[in-house]
Amino acid sequence: MNKVKVDYSLYLVTDRNALGGRDLIRSVEQAIKGGVTLVQLREKSLSTRNFLELAGRIKEITDHYQIPLIINDRLDIALALDADGLHIGQDDLPMIKAKELFPNKIIGVSASTLEEALLAQQQGADYVGVGAIFTTPTKTDAAEVSLDQLEHIKKSVAIPVVAIGGISEANLHQVMCKGIDGIAVVSAILAKDNILEAAQQLRKLLEQ
Amino acid sequence: MNKVKVDYSLYLVTDRNALGGRDLIRSVEQAIKGGVTLVQLREKSLSTRNFLELAGRIKEITDHYQIPLIINDRLDIALALDADGLHIGQDDLPMIKAKELFPNKIIGVSASTLEEALLAQQQGADYVGVGAIFTTPTKTDAAEVSLDQLEHIKKSVAIPVVAIGGISEANLHQVMCKGIDGIAVVSAILAKDNILEAAQQLRKLLEQ
Repeated sequence: MNKVKVDYSLYLVTDRNALGGRDLIRSVEQAIKGGVTLVQLREKSLSTRNFLELAGRIKEITDHYQIPLIINDRLDIALALDADGLHIGQDDLPMIKAKELFPNKIIGVSASTLEEALLAQQQGADYVGVGAIFTTPTKTDAAEVSLDQLEHIKKSVAIPVVAIGGISEANLHQVMCKGIDGIAVVSAILAKDNILEAAQQLRKLLEQ
Repeated sequence: MNKVKVDYSLYLVTDRNALGGRDLIRSVEQAIKGGVTLVQLREKSLSTRNFLELAGRIKEITDHYQIPLIINDRLDIALALDADGLHIGQDDLPMIKAKELFPNKIIGVSASTLEEALLAQQQGADYVGVGAIFTTPTKTDAAEVSLDQLEHIKKSVAIPVVAIGGISEANLHQVMCKGIDGIAVVSAILAKDNILEAAQQLRKLLEQ
């Protein structure tokens, strides 16, 4: 997959807890049908074997719809799956190691300060995920980033900037007007009763 | 490191819970000074970054004493560290993927049945860890393997067999007389007040 062609506009980050027992694979497919452009699989409690099996089933869906699949944190899973990319947080593998061990793949980095975003860019990150912008039920320990800081980061780096953290239909305009490249969402799609429609509605707002 | 030269006789598997707050790095060094021949770093709760940092500090010790360092489960850590090997359980990466992604390294597999041991050998495992032989406080969910089954497995595979699970000074003779290549221990070394002496004592019993 050609890295320069990645569309970061509507980036789905998974969290099985948001689904209230619904099937993750079917939910991801609905989200893609609704207009998601990129999928990040994030799992923190599965065994390696179960994570890999789940990732394999998600990859069948993302490959079918030609959507890049990014794995959160776990380079072992990303390698075993030959995923399209890896997303690393500040508690994950160092960027330098990720680039070395997973060459020619999309590597994204979470940043909650300008310094982290600049360092990620300098070390070769393909994009930065900046947040949390708003309070979020899925990551209660995330550092907060103001809309002004988001704008400052966007103006300071050349790589794509994706905003994350509590973004919804209601506040999407506030982040998009900062000139960023996309939004990453969990609950705004996966916690909704109708996942396909929720994605479609966000897609529509992004296109306005 | 030349794989054929690995000495499996006294294989230390780490568990910080066994240490009662003592420092893992210093404890591993004491165990090596006492006669441990191989170290497996097993961590299930650290972030990837913290696991890698800890592993880097352990590797300084194992490299200094020229003892191979095996990482449990996490190929990402093993790769980032350039460890000597990877140990996989039945819930971890498939053996085939581990061999492909970590070539020319020691790959060990946990087996609790003859079928699992034979499959591991067929897929290219360098050794099998067979257990749990005795009940163990560190892995309460482990399937039990009788001494007769252990002997049967040892006679059925050509690769080294290491017994694991509740092995101590008191019962070491019962497993070693089955002709196996070594014992893997956690508590019998790390839970002891004097780690160096505990390892020395096991070493002495192994040499008898």
